[in-house]
Amino acid sequence: MPGGVVLVDPYPRTLDQIFMPATRARLELLGEVVWHDGPPAPAELIDRHLPDAVAVVGQTPLPRERLDRAPRLRAILNVEGNFLPNVDYDKCFDRGIHVLTTGPVFADAVAELALGLALAAARDIPRADAWMREGTEVLYDEGVNGDAFLLSGGPLGVVGVGAIGRRLSALLRPFGSELLGHDPWLDDAVLCEEGLTPVALDELFSRCHVVFLVAAATVENEGSIGAELLGLLRPGSVVVLASRAAIVDWDALLDAAESGRIRIAIDVFPEEPIPPDARVRSIPNAILSAHRAGNVPEVWPQMGAMVADDLEAILAGGLPFRCQLARRETVRLLRSKPIG
Amino acid sequence: MPGGVVLVDPYPRTLDQIFMPATRARLELLGEVVWHDGPPAPAELIDRHLPDAVAVVGQTPLPRERLDRAPRLRAILNVEGNFLPNVDYDKCFDRGIHVLTTGPVFADAVAELALGLALAAARDIPRADAWMREGTEVLYDEGVNGDAFLLSGGPLGVVGVGAIGRRLSALLRPFGSELLGHDPWLDDAVLCEEGLTPVALDELFSRCHVVFLVAAATVENEGSIGAELLGLLRPGSVVVLASRAAIVDWDALLDAAESGRIRIAIDVFPEEPIPPDARVRSIPNAILSAHRAGNVPEVWPQMGAMVADDLEAILAGGLPFRCQLARRETVRLLRSKPIG
Amino acid sequence: MPGGVVLVDPYPRTLDQIFMPATRARLELLGEVVWHDGPPAPAELIDRHLPDAVAVVGQTPLPRERLDRAPRLRAILNVEGNFLPNVDYDKCFDRGIHVLTTGPVFADAVAELALGLALAAARDIPRADAWMREGTEVLYDEGVNGDAFLLSGGPLGVVGVGAIGRRLSALLRPFGSELLGHDPWLDDAVLCEEGLTPVALDELFSRCHVVFLVAAATVENEGSIGAELLGLLRPGSVVVLASRAAIVDWDALLDAAESGRIRIAIDVFPEEPIPPDARVRSIPNAILSAHRAGNVPEVWPQMGAMVADDLEAILAGGLPFRCQLARRETVRLLRSKPIG
Amino acid sequence: MPGGVVLVDPYPRTLDQIFMPATRARLELLGEVVWHDGPPAPAELIDRHLPDAVAVVGQTPLPRERLDRAPRLRAILNVEGNFLPNVDYDKCFDRGIHVLTTGPVFADAVAELALGLALAAARDIPRADAWMREGTEVLYDEGVNGDAFLLSGGPLGVVGVGAIGRRLSALLRPFGSELLGHDPWLDDAVLCEEGLTPVALDELFSRCHVVFLVAAATVENEGSIGAELLGLLRPGSVVVLASRAAIVDWDALLDAAESGRIRIAIDVFPEEPIPPDARVRSIPNAILSAHRAGNVPEVWPQMGAMVADDLEAILAGGLPFRCQLARRETVRLLRSKPIG
Repeated sequence: MPGGVVLVDPYPRTLDQIFMPATRARLELLGEVVWHDGPPAPAELIDRHLPDAVAVVGQTPLPRERLDRAPRLRAILNVEGNFLPNVDYDKCFDRGIHVLTTGPVFADAVAELALGLALAAARDIPRADAWMREGTEVLYDEGVNGDAFLLSGGPLGVVGVGAIGRRLSALLRPFGSELLGHDPWLDDAVLCEEGLTPVALDELFSRCHVVFLVAAATVENEGSIGAELLGLLRPGSVVVLASRAAIVDWDALLDAAESGRIRIAIDVFPEEPIPPDARVRSIPNAILSAHRAGNVPEVWPQMGAMVADDLEAILAGGLPFRCQLARRETVRLLRSKPIG
Repeated sequence: MPGGVVLVDPYPRTLDQIFMPATRARLELLGEVVWHDGPPAPAELIDRHLPDAVAVVGQTPLPRERLDRAPRLRAILNVEGNFLPNVDYDKCFDRGIHVLTTGPVFADAVAELALGLALAAARDIPRADAWMREGTEVLYDEGVNGDAFLLSGGPLGVVGVGAIGRRLSALLRPFGSELLGHDPWLDDAVLCEEGLTPVALDELFSRCHVVFLVAAATVENEGSIGAELLGLLRPGSVVVLASRAAIVDWDALLDAAESGRIRIAIDVFPEEPIPPDARVRSIPNAILSAHRAGNVPEVWPQMGAMVADDLEAILAGGLPFRCQLARRETVRLLRSKPIG
Repeated sequence: MPGGVVLVDPYPRTLDQIFMPATRARLELLGEVVWHDGPPAPAELIDRHLPDAVAVVGQTPLPRERLDRAPRLRAILNVEGNFLPNVDYDKCFDRGIHVLTTGPVFADAVAELALGLALAAARDIPRADAWMREGTEVLYDEGVNGDAFLLSGGPLGVVGVGAIGRRLSALLRPFGSELLGHDPWLDDAVLCEEGLTPVALDELFSRCHVVFLVAAATVENEGSIGAELLGLLRPGSVVVLASRAAIVDWDALLDAAESGRIRIAIDVFPEEPIPPDARVRSIPNAILSAHRAGNVPEVWPQMGAMVADDLEAILAGGLPFRCQLARRETVRLLRSKPIG
Repeated sequence: MPGGVVLVDPYPRTLDQIFMPATRARLELLGEVVWHDGPPAPAELIDRHLPDAVAVVGQTPLPRERLDRAPRLRAILNVEGNFLPNVDYDKCFDRGIHVLTTGPVFADAVAELALGLALAAARDIPRADAWMREGTEVLYDEGVNGDAFLLSGGPLGVVGVGAIGRRLSALLRPFGSELLGHDPWLDDAVLCEEGLTPVALDELFSRCHVVFLVAAATVENEGSIGAELLGLLRPGSVVVLASRAAIVDWDALLDAAESGRIRIAIDVFPEEPIPPDARVRSIPNAILSAHRAGNVPEVWPQMGAMVADDLEAILAGGLPFRCQLARRETVRLLRSKPIG
């Protein structure tokens, strides 16, 4: 088995969703590919291939004892947006096994929806459509547009400057407003390079007319966006939540929208599937989207291509550049819930 | 009357809407300002001030005979988005009287809404919100998002490269897609400078996933976007109409949306106020907005400031730079309907 | 003569320099083209064609009496960088004759050289080369580089925001420094659109590490950059002069460089040809270039193409967009010397 | 010793050069700082502090046996542009010790000089200055400028897309030419994100009018830019060498310039100090600069600040973001010579 085994266990994705024929052909050139599909791969299948595995593609559980039985393993690629606690990361770091996620593949899709939600909220697009349907629109009346505002009219804030935050910042730049950024894991100089002025959260919430929440959920930031910060927003501001619900104090966010003081646009929810009687469903001043930001058809084949690109690089002795690399200092702090 | 009279007759705007105290003070420094408000200024008021008028701010009728009685007149500034047939333009050109509109003041607001409508249509934002309200959303299912697409995923087209089209092009640039442009009044080199590839309309409609219609209505382009061009669009494309409805064949546009082949997002209508039983109100695959693109509170004071900027420049012997200047070759071709 | 005559009298350019065969063919489609070459066209030739002339391409003298004999004339295009006093401009404005120069064709070339001169001065490129040739370089010694500085390290100033200034601003933007601009003929909002902070000259000279002088010479700014402004520059600053020498107090500029307080880089001179014993030739802290900024081979054919583009537009009843248009308020203030 | 020891051994830099008082104060807050200056730290000093060292700042030799005596060590920061073979990198990776260089601090300075050299070569700036000094300039004569060209006129190539290559690409973007890039260590998608079209070296040399060589020297690319590639350049092209001389076949490069076919601009040399009789000193069509690209006064204090930023992050349990991180796959391939 000179090339080694690439074990593909893509749940909650499916093979057809992410691996186009051309991508499959590329992977076949790298070794013996074991294509599993459907539910998570059974233990028997995994264990059989561990001794020869050079790469695992998926969320396959890889605790220390399994890693110990995979001496040739060089890469683990989760075909998801986040790192989950399915891998003994420390062991991987010690052995120089790359652990990666395809999270950055969603950056374009999430950033575009986040911007779309912000514009929809700032300009009341869904309600304007409803008015036309009902025949209740009022023409040329500044009054009914009284809470509309321009993204070019003032500071915009980005909380979390990972792949999504960086892409979003690029989309926001031509609006010409000052861009404020906050990311406790990044040096100020990194934010400056993205055109973001690094500020503390309270300054960001006090000054920005739109706040984009695109930070990963971590043990450090759970529920950290609460009533106090939301209370700093000026009336009529918009909060767009497009990464993980865990970073906000959910009821405080809904309270702020319900009070009429702010508008919110939300793509992620603390409980998914969202309970039929969830309070959020009837909150006014809100635009709701059921975790659809990354779920765009053209993204999925790119996910497979990303896997192929990085696997080719790693198995040729080079560095992966397209997926996100787990890093010792931060991976243990992440707290995303699995999807599926 | 050394400074001369500035006659302000801002209908359909009001004084309070566009002239902040600081702007009024700036105008007062330029001469004797006659502040009229409410309905259009009566003939008596206009005629009384013509002999000393150096500037008229508004849509005041200024046929040749009135211009002949205004020997000191140097500028006419319509506080609207378009040039109307209220002025004898040729006479003004012969005499070197600047005729201007504050149209460019709307460029930011219209471009932002046009982008917002495109993202809302491409990602089905209003419908996604409705699903959540009704409890009919489907989570993580690629199927229900099957027609979502990214603006970063392919060519985007801009028809009309005036102030709105240029601003919109700037907002579209970071999406990274090829930008195709069409404007029969502009040299290709001008479009290239804006980052647009100049193409004919049929190429634009054939290739673009989103087509933004932001051209002024002219005698040349009335109804020119019809069934033939719309038929070139690939299924699932989005047409955003954000300038004047007259440039499209209205029924052909609604047919295309009703057939399910394309999605449309519309801010302007052939008849305004829109009749209660207008066909457009029940068209599916459409996002409707009742001529709200430019009507954003923060725009109006900028309109007054724009008037002051250019009037200061003109009366000091310089050139206006903020408003749009009527030009002999094109003003006679424009065909916008008045608002109000 | 239905199409009318296009009289081409391109001195100081030559036909071969600016009109490629394809450009000539385009002009031939517009009417009868009279191609004159070499010295300025003789009066006899001009007078013969005036009655049928629809366009004159060149610096042909066109006083009122000649214009009166050219009833069909619609455009005058000077194939040069500036407007000269060879035309009765007021008569042209009254009659709606477009008067244009191909000046903007030089914008890329001049802006690139201006940036090149700034970097050469900030990093001492010519001297560093000389040291290597002489074997007197000192390696790795911060001392000899003590006056080097980065364009990314502080404000940069642009005086004159015409075609060159705008192009230069675009080239300077990615350096990331604040860009200060000054142009008394433009509204602040225009400078802001170019990414320039509008400031008075004294603030510009006080704050900028590099000052680019790219303003046209006018009756208003002759000698206006003098000892006072130059005295505000901090030591080690660089002044790049790339438009017309008349805007500076020449001896004050040379004094400032000779004193060692500032560095200068100069492409234009008060007297051209430059006298053999001109003081500037031996000034230290200077990089000298003999009016070469616009003189790049690839520019000349573009000049002809620009003429064809705008002439096609004008004769078809449209607007010119590529050349610069003379405007009533400013053309009488310009004071460029002819070249040739 | 709760905080641990930070051993500062900055040779070939000095303490005063890179550590401003504020930076020193920041480091003092991190633990006990041992400030060594002048020549490399003596073995005795190093060995004494190893048991408590949490960070070493400098090129201190750290073979396996020393690392074994430094159980608390978490970071090694070389205050230089490159990774040298002074550290047992594998041991560091196994233990999770970050090894970093301050190389990115030079990116602005090197990119600006590289652009300056390209413009100087494309427009013959040093020679134009010499002509003026000698009184041999020829005014307005296209002939003497016959080989001048614009960077906006055609493809520009960047070989090596590290920190310098990325910064340089940003500076080149507004010129508007296609940017071609080559970097065998990076995925094509990474180059695309920087606005570079990824191509093979032969396409890059065949198409580009200016080729910027800004790649690190590695075991893979030594002498790889030779007669064959240089022979693909079209006549009059410019090659700028601004990273390490080892990547070119030196004599082939000088031959190409001496033949008159291309122009070169060089900041780095195969032997430094450069021998007095080095052939390069008398090569025509060359602009020479004695390894001055990174040596700009304002860079040095930023180097110290970069160390403080990353050390603060690492010792607080976070990730470094400003320095360049050694990575297992590539550090063993680097082959830069030490400076000093």
